[in-house]
Amino acid sequence: MSISLTVEEAAGWLNERDNFLILTHRRPDGDTLGSGGALAQGLREHGKTAYVLNNPEATLRYVHCIEPYIAPVDFKPEHVISVDTATTDLFPSNAKEYISRLSLCIDHHPSNTFYAEYTCLNAERASCGEVVFDILMNLSGHVSAETAARLYIALSTDTGCFSFSNTTANTLKVASQLVDAGAPNKEINKVLFRTKSQSRIKIEGMLLSGLEFSFDNKVAIASITMDMLNESGAGEDDLDDIAALPCSIEGVFIGIIIRELSSKNKCKLSVRSNAPYNARLVCEHFGGGGHDLAAGCIINKSISEIKELLVPVLKESKPSL
Amino acid sequence: MSISLTVEEAAGWLNERDNFLILTHRRPDGDTLGSGGALAQGLREHGKTAYVLNNPEATLRYVHCIEPYIAPVDFKPEHVISVDTATTDLFPSNAKEYISRLSLCIDHHPSNTFYAEYTCLNAERASCGEVVFDILMNLSGHVSAETAARLYIALSTDTGCFSFSNTTANTLKVASQLVDAGAPNKEINKVLFRTKSQSRIKIEGMLLSGLEFSFDNKVAIASITMDMLNESGAGEDDLDDIAALPCSIEGVFIGIIIRELSSKNKCKLSVRSNAPYNARLVCEHFGGGGHDLAAGCIINKSISEIKELLVPVLKESKPSL
Repeated sequence: MSISLTVEEAAGWLNERDNFLILTHRRPDGDTLGSGGALAQGLREHGKTAYVLNNPEATLRYVHCIEPYIAPVDFKPEHVISVDTATTDLFPSNAKEYISRLSLCIDHHPSNTFYAEYTCLNAERASCGEVVFDILMNLSGHVSAETAARLYIALSTDTGCFSFSNTTANTLKVASQLVDAGAPNKEINKVLFRTKSQSRIKIEGMLLSGLEFSFDNKVAIASITMDMLNESGAGEDDLDDIAALPCSIEGVFIGIIIRELSSKNKCKLSVRSNAPYNARLVCEHFGGGGHDLAAGCIINKSISEIKELLVPVLKESKPSL
Repeated sequence: MSISLTVEEAAGWLNERDNFLILTHRRPDGDTLGSGGALAQGLREHGKTAYVLNNPEATLRYVHCIEPYIAPVDFKPEHVISVDTATTDLFPSNAKEYISRLSLCIDHHPSNTFYAEYTCLNAERASCGEVVFDILMNLSGHVSAETAARLYIALSTDTGCFSFSNTTANTLKVASQLVDAGAPNKEINKVLFRTKSQSRIKIEGMLLSGLEFSFDNKVAIASITMDMLNESGAGEDDLDDIAALPCSIEGVFIGIIIRELSSKNKCKLSVRSNAPYNARLVCEHFGGGGHDLAAGCIINKSISEIKELLVPVLKESKPSL
C-alpha cells in the first residue's frame, strides 16, 4: 500500500530528506521532463542534492528541461521520485533498477496505480507541473525563473497552450504566477506552438491533400506512407499531435490516421473521436485500446486493406454513422 | 483634448450615468465584439440600460457575443462608448452619426488617438477585454458567467489562445478568474481554436502544397487564387489568421501571402516577419503599411508579376537575405 500525501505533506517529506533521483516516463513529453527538471532545480535552490535520471528517449524539443540535472553514473540516491508516471511499466529501460525502491510518486493521472511508498496525486490537475508547483510553493514559498520556465513548459504542453479541454482555472492561475516569476512564455510559445518545421509543413500539406471523407463527412481518414516520411523528412518531433488533425475538422466525429511503420504491411492506426463516438471501440476491434476519444492499434495489413477493413467496423458505430 | 480615466474612475463614471450605446470596430474580431457584449451585459446587471450598435460586418464566428444587446433603431442613447477602437475611421458606416459625440473610449491600443471626451486606455493589456474586466470588477465586484464567457472570447482571440507574444501574466490571471466565474473555456476553445472548417482545411492544404521558398529558405511565399477560393469554398472566417502560416515555418523570416481580390490583376499582399526583418518596409515599397512584423498592401498586378516585383525589394532587406 502507498501512503497518500497532500502537497503540503509532500513538501514536508522532501524538506526532511536529501539526495534525490527523479525519474521521468518513456516517450517523454513536456510535462514529465518539465516537471522533472523543475523539481530538481527547486530542490537544489532549497539546498538539496537532486538529479534527474537520463531519459534515453528525450527529443530535442524537451531535453533541455532536464539536461543541467542529469545524474552522473555513480550517483547513489537515497530517495527515488517519479513525476507524471501512472504505472511502473511506463519507465524507460535504464530506470529498471529503481522501480522496486520508489519513495515518492508525484502525478496527476487518475489511472495512477500507487506503486511508490508515498504518492502525491492530484487528478484534478491538467498537468503534473501544477502539482510540482504546489509542492515547491509549500517548500520554499516561491519559484525561480529557471524553475518557472520548466513548469510553464509542463503546463502549456499538456494543455495545448491552454486550449485543450483539461485546462482549468488553476492551470491558468499557475501559468500567470509562472510568467510573473520569470517564465519566458513568449519565447517558449513561439518555439512550441507558433513554429512548424519545414518537414511538418510538408507532411501536413500531403496529409491534408490526401484526406478522404466518408459517412456523410463524419469520418476523415488520412494516410502517412514511408514515402511521405522520406520525402518530407518528418521525424517523431514533426509528427507530434498530428493524429488530432483529421478530427479537428468541422463536422468530423471520427478522425483516423493510418501510418506505415517498418513495412507497407505493418501500419499504426491512430483514431480520435468527438463524443458520442468512441475511438477506443474502433481500435479494440483490431486488438488495440486507449481512451474513449483517443486510441490506437497496430495492424499487419497495407493501408488500402485497412481502409476496407474499417468500413464494416465504422458501420457498427453507435450512434450509427 | 480627452480626459484620461483609470479603470476605477471609468467604473465611477459609468456608475453615475445611464442609457449607454456601445460601438465596436470595423472588420470586428473577438476582442471588440466580446468586450462590447460583456460591457453591455455587465452594465445591465448593474441596473443600467445598455445596448450595442449593430455591427454590419460581424461574422457568424463572433456575432453571438453582441446579438442579445443589439440596439433597437429608436434607441436614443445619452452616452456613447467605444471599445477596442483606436481611431474614428475604424468605426463601421452605421456609426457615423455618433462619432462627434463619443463620451468614453475603452481601449488597449497604444495608437489610440484620444478622440472621445473621456478615455480609459491601458496599452499594457493584450486585449481590450482585460480593461473591460477591470472596469466591471470595480463597478460590481464580480462578473457573471454570461459576461465572463464574452470576456474570455475577447482575451483568448486577441492572444491566439494565450500563445501570442502579447500574452502577459495579467491575461492569464484574468482568464483564470473568468473560468472561475463560469466562462465555458472548454467549449469556446473547441470551436475557436481546435476546429477547422472543411473549407479551411482544403485551402490550407492547397496553400501548403504551393509554398515557394527562396533566399535560402528565409522567405516563404504562398498564393491564394480566386479559383482556390471557389474550389475550397473558403470565406473570410476560413481565412482568419492564415497570413501567419508561411512565417510560422522554422527558419522563415519573411512570410508572404498573395491573394487575388476582385480580378487576377488586383492582389492583396499580407506580409509577416520575424525580427530583425521588417514586414512594414516591404509593404511600404508598394504604398502599404502596418506594423513592423505584420503589414499589408494592395497591388494592381497579377500573382506572377508581383512575385517578380518582390525579388528586388526582398534583396534590399536589412540584414541582407
